[in-house]
Amino acid sequence: MDCIDAGITSQQGLIAHGRGEAFDYLIGERTLKSARRATEVAAAMLLTANKPVLSVNGNVAALVAKDMIELSELLNAPLEVNIFYRTEERARKIKALLEKQGAKNVLGNTLDAKIQGIEHARAMVDREGIYSADVVLAPLEDGDRCEALMNMGKKVITIDLNPLSRTSKTATVSIVDDIARAMKNLVSMVKEKKNSKIDLAAFLVGYDNKALLKAVIEEIVVRLENEDLRV
Amino acid sequence: MDCIDAGITSQQGLIAHGRGEAFDYLIGERTLKSARRATEVAAAMLLTANKPVLSVNGNVAALVAKDMIELSELLNAPLEVNIFYRTEERARKIKALLEKQGAKNVLGNTLDAKIQGIEHARAMVDREGIYSADVVLAPLEDGDRCEALMNMGKKVITIDLNPLSRTSKTATVSIVDDIARAMKNLVSMVKEKKNSKIDLAAFLVGYDNKALLKAVIEEIVVRLENEDLRV
Repeated sequence: MDCIDAGITSQQGLIAHGRGEAFDYLIGERTLKSARRATEVAAAMLLTANKPVLSVNGNVAALVAKDMIELSELLNAPLEVNIFYRTEERARKIKALLEKQGAKNVLGNTLDAKIQGIEHARAMVDREGIYSADVVLAPLEDGDRCEALMNMGKKVITIDLNPLSRTSKTATVSIVDDIARAMKNLVSMVKEKKNSKIDLAAFLVGYDNKALLKAVIEEIVVRLENEDLRV
Repeated sequence: MDCIDAGITSQQGLIAHGRGEAFDYLIGERTLKSARRATEVAAAMLLTANKPVLSVNGNVAALVAKDMIELSELLNAPLEVNIFYRTEERARKIKALLEKQGAKNVLGNTLDAKIQGIEHARAMVDREGIYSADVVLAPLEDGDRCEALMNMGKKVITIDLNPLSRTSKTATVSIVDDIARAMKNLVSMVKEKKNSKIDLAAFLVGYDNKALLKAVIEEIVVRLENEDLRV
């Protein structure tokens, strides 16, 4: 709640957070096996990327700034402030929040390149950041922008509690999990894999994002069918 | 969005709205047959009540003020401003909004009676309103307060998109539908029944709120199982 007053999250961001809460309730407020597998794949994909970039919007900054900063350092990858309901003031505040918490490499103040396929105001990205990235971690991303990034040939990793969202359906890797749980897992998996001699490419073999989404839906169905309607 | 800036809805109200949106998506953004049946029962229950009262919180005022006012006139029942995150200023603003739109009978400024079983600040109601009502329409109500009203022997009709919420499970009649759709239906059913010679008591026979919730869950399961995961 502090973060909306501080101008970090938008009112639309709060509604989106509520939608996420409903789905988190439906998956039982825990990390599903399928989400753990997706997070492993995401960790390997980020570690083997040529140029990974981590996209930060208002909700991401409000909820997991510290983990995003730690991940940025582990991967030597920039953070890019990228917000849907953009005002320069809100972008500046998010950048300031990240830097105050120790972030050293934050892009997104000079948006000098355009993603194709979406309207101008929401399409602008940093030429040195998302525009030239091969792998983008874009948690809580909007469906249009996720699709536009995919169309540019990028691999997009998202974190989204709604397995039915266009973002989840579109992304290369969809981590259907609460962002705080997912980021904690992602940071620890990146740490672990970074210092191991394990073949990272092996994690990327045989991964099917649609199968993962189906597994999440099946978990929700089982939970709904076993719901106790007594108070 | 205007209503949060105007101090009508709270930030928690926006998150709650988002949770509702997720469930509305899952039921297909339409009025289910089960919800239509619940709304019929609610209309008959309000028309046969000795003292019906209509509870209005910030989200209700922001979304369906006009319908609540019309229902209040049709039933000759007072509206009562009753908000979870209460500040006197917000309560006053909600009352002013209702009166500006034509409401003539708005209670809730003098909270002089206490509902048993919940903490003081959230338990206060109007002695002339909810406290002495036999049937309370309390859309988008919190689970604790719904339960407390039930424990006082009142019949509680709620409107809540989440069939699994404690409010839905606790209420006498749970209309699992979007509040705008549900209120529109409720107003038109009250109008229709009010001027007919139909036996209203007959609508109340054989109504099982748990069966209704089960029917909603079954609709969601069918929808989930048929979800197309292609974009």
